[in-house]
Amino acid sequence: MSENASTVRTLFWDDGALMLLDQRVLPHEFTYVRCSTVEEVIDAIRAMVVRGAPAIGIAAAYGAVLAVGAAFEQHADTWREAVGADLEALRASRPTAVNLGWAIDSMVGQFPAPGVDPRPQLLAYARLLEDADVAANVAMGERGAAYLAADTRVITHCNAGALATAGYGTALGVIRSAWRQDKLKVVFATETRPWLQGARLTAWELHEDGIPVTLIADSAAAELMRDGEIGWVITGADRIAANGDVANKIGTYSLAVCARAHGVRFMVAAPLSTVDRDTPDGGAIPIEQRDGAELLGYRNCRTAPPGVAAYNPVFDVTPAALIDVLVTEKGAVEKPDHVSIARLFGPCD
Amino acid sequence: MSENASTVRTLFWDDGALMLLDQRVLPHEFTYVRCSTVEEVIDAIRAMVVRGAPAIGIAAAYGAVLAVGAAFEQHADTWREAVGADLEALRASRPTAVNLGWAIDSMVGQFPAPGVDPRPQLLAYARLLEDADVAANVAMGERGAAYLAADTRVITHCNAGALATAGYGTALGVIRSAWRQDKLKVVFATETRPWLQGARLTAWELHEDGIPVTLIADSAAAELMRDGEIGWVITGADRIAANGDVANKIGTYSLAVCARAHGVRFMVAAPLSTVDRDTPDGGAIPIEQRDGAELLGYRNCRTAPPGVAAYNPVFDVTPAALIDVLVTEKGAVEKPDHVSIARLFGPCD
Repeated sequence: MSENASTVRTLFWDDGALMLLDQRVLPHEFTYVRCSTVEEVIDAIRAMVVRGAPAIGIAAAYGAVLAVGAAFEQHADTWREAVGADLEALRASRPTAVNLGWAIDSMVGQFPAPGVDPRPQLLAYARLLEDADVAANVAMGERGAAYLAADTRVITHCNAGALATAGYGTALGVIRSAWRQDKLKVVFATETRPWLQGARLTAWELHEDGIPVTLIADSAAAELMRDGEIGWVITGADRIAANGDVANKIGTYSLAVCARAHGVRFMVAAPLSTVDRDTPDGGAIPIEQRDGAELLGYRNCRTAPPGVAAYNPVFDVTPAALIDVLVTEKGAVEKPDHVSIARLFGPCD
Repeated sequence: MSENASTVRTLFWDDGALMLLDQRVLPHEFTYVRCSTVEEVIDAIRAMVVRGAPAIGIAAAYGAVLAVGAAFEQHADTWREAVGADLEALRASRPTAVNLGWAIDSMVGQFPAPGVDPRPQLLAYARLLEDADVAANVAMGERGAAYLAADTRVITHCNAGALATAGYGTALGVIRSAWRQDKLKVVFATETRPWLQGARLTAWELHEDGIPVTLIADSAAAELMRDGEIGWVITGADRIAANGDVANKIGTYSLAVCARAHGVRFMVAAPLSTVDRDTPDGGAIPIEQRDGAELLGYRNCRTAPPGVAAYNPVFDVTPAALIDVLVTEKGAVEKPDHVSIARLFGPCD
């Protein structure tokens, strides 16, 4: 990890297994889940032991290492065919974050020629993806922080931090860099119902780093934009369509609408692996619906009465027109659109 | 109560004491708190055993009965002076809802001449205020429902229901009337962090009445306005300034901004006792800040890590310009402003 990276280790490879910091029980318990098989990685992604689009991508890369390893041990000659079903199950473990598919495709692109033990090469490549994610986040952090003036008050939503990535974070990477550059006054973290990523993860991560953080109800953000001298809303992304529409945690769209209404600027920080050029616009992004139980109670405490229905989409789509700046490791684009996003990928891609 | 009113009894007078349905533990426990002294009423209002501006007002009226009763028993000649401090403490028990002060002033206006036992007269008047509140809500319900087309999908916030009033509800009164008129398709209730009035109270109240209700995260409302064919947002109010600005549960302002951005109409239903003609505009309404602990966890379940600050304003102000219709028991006004609100009070007030 970069010397700039947060010291939280969201995931790491340890002696033939993927270790995942269990984000379901943070910040009150700090434990790792050990995944020795791709099935265990799939279960962990589904259950949100690991979450955050970039972290899911890196976890999937190590999941592919486990899947290929098992296939190679059983079918030394035909492991490429044997591993296919596992990789498709891994790809389907969560629907919205495109980094998951991107990481699997990247790993498949590294499959060695038949007859070669694929394990060392694929493990090395997964590690490279992990390191590259941290490096991308540090680059994004510097690039995004350049937009902030002195004493900026920021709202962030969900957790796009070290815990959502291999380290340093995307939105929280920008916030970390801004803090180091002495530009940040305070971060208001929305608690982010229903899974409380803001209250449990962002508040913890920033507080651990000594960055001033104040928790707010999701619904208090608009009032704060009017009265609280907010300069920027900064979020991550789970998938960015070719036209710049952004799928991110439910509530992002509400923040973007309110930011525009109050003249507060809106920044999305995400690596290029989050951009899905095969998805033309936000309407084509699959939005995960999770169990209403997440919303009918508060962790183990039931709140709503029995028999009540819940509508629990866990992502929403913010149109590109509401995004002032999209920051990636390859550059930042203001008022992102189809053309400026295509340009990030360079002329040959 | 009217035959149209919900059967939930939020409060009632019982043999010398005010009985309050304990809204802190609904819907999983159904218990009443018995208040035999004004101090117990004050504590109950502060602790939110009873909440909702109109219900707080009626509770305060009965609190005044208890205060006057105790003062009269101790000082049969000078009870009017003796009761002053108790009534001021009652008035200060919560700052934002103006119905509290209105109810106390109404009771003081009924104080009998010296030498007369004030208790029977004041108890009768508190009962009259209670009955008048239910009647006002039924009138508002019919008036508000007249604005809804067939098959309307509504978002409501917090609880402005039978539980927030003496019965039938303000916003939920409109929803009840619309349901009876076969105009209502479904109500989306925001869970309403931090106190979860939507998840615990509105979902329960509507479900008990057989009205279709679906719970959503507060932050999902904007997405639903874009994609969910929402016709109206309908809320109550805790205080309405002379110019029509509305203080209501935190998050109301965010809903109003998003509603306007999506062409969704916004209705506020509240009795005239919620209008504070001495408050010129929303900027002059005192906004209650409650303990950050309400936001740092839920009941006994701590979410945020120790040491993290929380900003917990429990109301916000929605400017009159974002309100399409204000419904009161004396009439509905579209695009409320200083003039149209003054007109509701009639030429002699």
